[in-house]
Amino acid sequence: MTANAVTSAYPLFDPTDPVFRAHEGGKFGVHATQPLRDRADLALLYTPGVADVSRAIALDPTLAARYTARANTVAVVTDGTAVLGLGDIGPLAAMPVMEGKAVLFKHFGAVDAVPVCMETGSVEELVDAIARIAPTYGGINLEDISAPRCFEIERRLQERLDIPVFHDDQHGTAIVVLAGLLNAAKVVGRSLESLRVVVSGAGAAGVAVTRLLARAGVADIVVCDSRGIIAPARADLADHKRRLAATTNPRGLTGGLGDALVGADVFVGVSGGTVPEHELAGMAPDAIIFALANPDPEVHPDVAARHAAVVATGRSDFPNQINNVLAFPGIFRGALDSGAPQVTEAMKLAAARAIADLVPEPTADEIVPSVFAPGVADAVAAAVVACA
Amino acid sequence: MTANAVTSAYPLFDPTDPVFRAHEGGKFGVHATQPLRDRADLALLYTPGVADVSRAIALDPTLAARYTARANTVAVVTDGTAVLGLGDIGPLAAMPVMEGKAVLFKHFGAVDAVPVCMETGSVEELVDAIARIAPTYGGINLEDISAPRCFEIERRLQERLDIPVFHDDQHGTAIVVLAGLLNAAKVVGRSLESLRVVVSGAGAAGVAVTRLLARAGVADIVVCDSRGIIAPARADLADHKRRLAATTNPRGLTGGLGDALVGADVFVGVSGGTVPEHELAGMAPDAIIFALANPDPEVHPDVAARHAAVVATGRSDFPNQINNVLAFPGIFRGALDSGAPQVTEAMKLAAARAIADLVPEPTADEIVPSVFAPGVADAVAAAVVACA
Repeated sequence: MTANAVTSAYPLFDPTDPVFRAHEGGKFGVHATQPLRDRADLALLYTPGVADVSRAIALDPTLAARYTARANTVAVVTDGTAVLGLGDIGPLAAMPVMEGKAVLFKHFGAVDAVPVCMETGSVEELVDAIARIAPTYGGINLEDISAPRCFEIERRLQERLDIPVFHDDQHGTAIVVLAGLLNAAKVVGRSLESLRVVVSGAGAAGVAVTRLLARAGVADIVVCDSRGIIAPARADLADHKRRLAATTNPRGLTGGLGDALVGADVFVGVSGGTVPEHELAGMAPDAIIFALANPDPEVHPDVAARHAAVVATGRSDFPNQINNVLAFPGIFRGALDSGAPQVTEAMKLAAARAIADLVPEPTADEIVPSVFAPGVADAVAAAVVACA
Repeated sequence: MTANAVTSAYPLFDPTDPVFRAHEGGKFGVHATQPLRDRADLALLYTPGVADVSRAIALDPTLAARYTARANTVAVVTDGTAVLGLGDIGPLAAMPVMEGKAVLFKHFGAVDAVPVCMETGSVEELVDAIARIAPTYGGINLEDISAPRCFEIERRLQERLDIPVFHDDQHGTAIVVLAGLLNAAKVVGRSLESLRVVVSGAGAAGVAVTRLLARAGVADIVVCDSRGIIAPARADLADHKRRLAATTNPRGLTGGLGDALVGADVFVGVSGGTVPEHELAGMAPDAIIFALANPDPEVHPDVAARHAAVVATGRSDFPNQINNVLAFPGIFRGALDSGAPQVTEAMKLAAARAIADLVPEPTADEIVPSVFAPGVADAVAAAVVACA
């Protein structure tokens, strides 16, 4: 979707609307954690006292973790090229989303997150700019950066920096999908290894979901993009899809999404598109359908329920909301608390299991905890710390 | 001073010292300005509600001023190359200073400031990185960037961006020096135009002080660096000093600081060096001495008082503290409130006059208001807004 699509979908701007009223003046602020009452406080918090702290850190950089805000501060970084379902709307229009993310980081994970909305540019330019400001932060949450650039930007930053760099659209989604699938498999009495999974969408989320499910033991994954099943024979594949083609689709299927779904046990939609009911009708008995496009799922949950034993969406008004907020606050909380230099694959798997374990007796209507269930971020953080 | 100098000056690191205790965990945090209690709040502050705000800003970028935190957020940007008197200690060790600055911004100006501590690099690289993240902020406060790079970095950012870019080491200092000099001149019954001024130091502060005093009407300014009086005949001058040579020293003096001080009315020390008493003894009667090096003034105020009618320092334990905090919170408060795209020379002059006017009856012991005097930032902000 491009900025043009925004125009056609634009509702009347109404400053009296509760959404706009809630955004008046922005959604986050900064505060001092120490009192500043008089000259004595000033001498402690600023000159001349602060010079002692700066000197100490210059001699021993590890002291920065203890004596600066860095160890609890995460940058929520975007170039505004793939914001929600709105597409490339630029850094300024992305700001409310990044502020919202900062609010969620604080509320659920007690992490001080600050938005960093950047003018877009080449992969090289974005990597250089992010790496240059990285000393300020204890972690980097990449957000709403378009595929396939997001893959290389994340990889290069991870190579260059010694702090966690985590593209939430990829890994946050993948972690919560895996958590949901672990419990959905329990509900239908299946092992993860035995499931045939179809992932619809080969963008940031699709690639990461495929990778994490494979690592968790799912052996048969078929990925579809808008042109159909991703397979080595296709000549139109970008690098990241070519890698998918090499590692998925073990039965060598060809054709469209409907062909992939014949006999499939699991549908994971992270595409933004729609799926016709007749294609879902070809799935195996006791199917699992995750229709995660937002705000409109690939298939309405009521329709999906005719063909599946377990249905999940991204929506809060239906059971089984697959929401990244179950993962990212705890992921960063744990990474910051442990001083981990990166979020490893083992941490992601452990986080998914921790989320799944918060529902001791999963049912078709409860495969993941509620976003507001107490202790989710703590459990995820503990799992991350245990891996660090 | 280089990082090596830090080693020799390093006091024992003592975690029980009040300074280190006050810095434990850092000095600033982030908070939400709206309640997040339940799914309804989540739908307002994040998806799906936030999409309406992002769409509105994509169509009308001016709405970002109203519906994001940007309009009240200032980045305190450094590369750590000229931190306090410590020199090039790098971005990590600069963090406590930038956090302290953020605390002052909030306390005195109600501005939400966030540190941005960058790996250093070429002028080009720093300008590119800062310009790239600029959409996040309503203003950029450059801090503790070494001269002469600071001049070009500021100039190029001002050309590229439509938000205020203000190097506080230059202009904050210059504004408060001018404020103090306006009142010191009153105390000794002189006009600004009639004063012979010697500025010791041709770094960031020296250049900016010279420029602002000239604009305020001081006609006779002689600038000295560590090698003596800056004059066109000198072959060792960098560009910024060559420009000073062309616009100052109207009587064509040559020699050292002592030669410049013979018959001078005003000494402004922004050098970090020291001045021997016998050189100050050559100043004109009713001299004015601003010895602003921190934490050790170029001359002890008790010694200076033997040769001057008015003495000011950067220290809080003597009268007449020339402290940037009198200026920068109000400068940015006013710039943000007025939506000014830059801090103009007129704004700086008006800010200096506003600070001076807060002391209606200046005396030798009170030429500027106290840092904690109520209403300073408001008065400065009002002066800036009036110019915008």
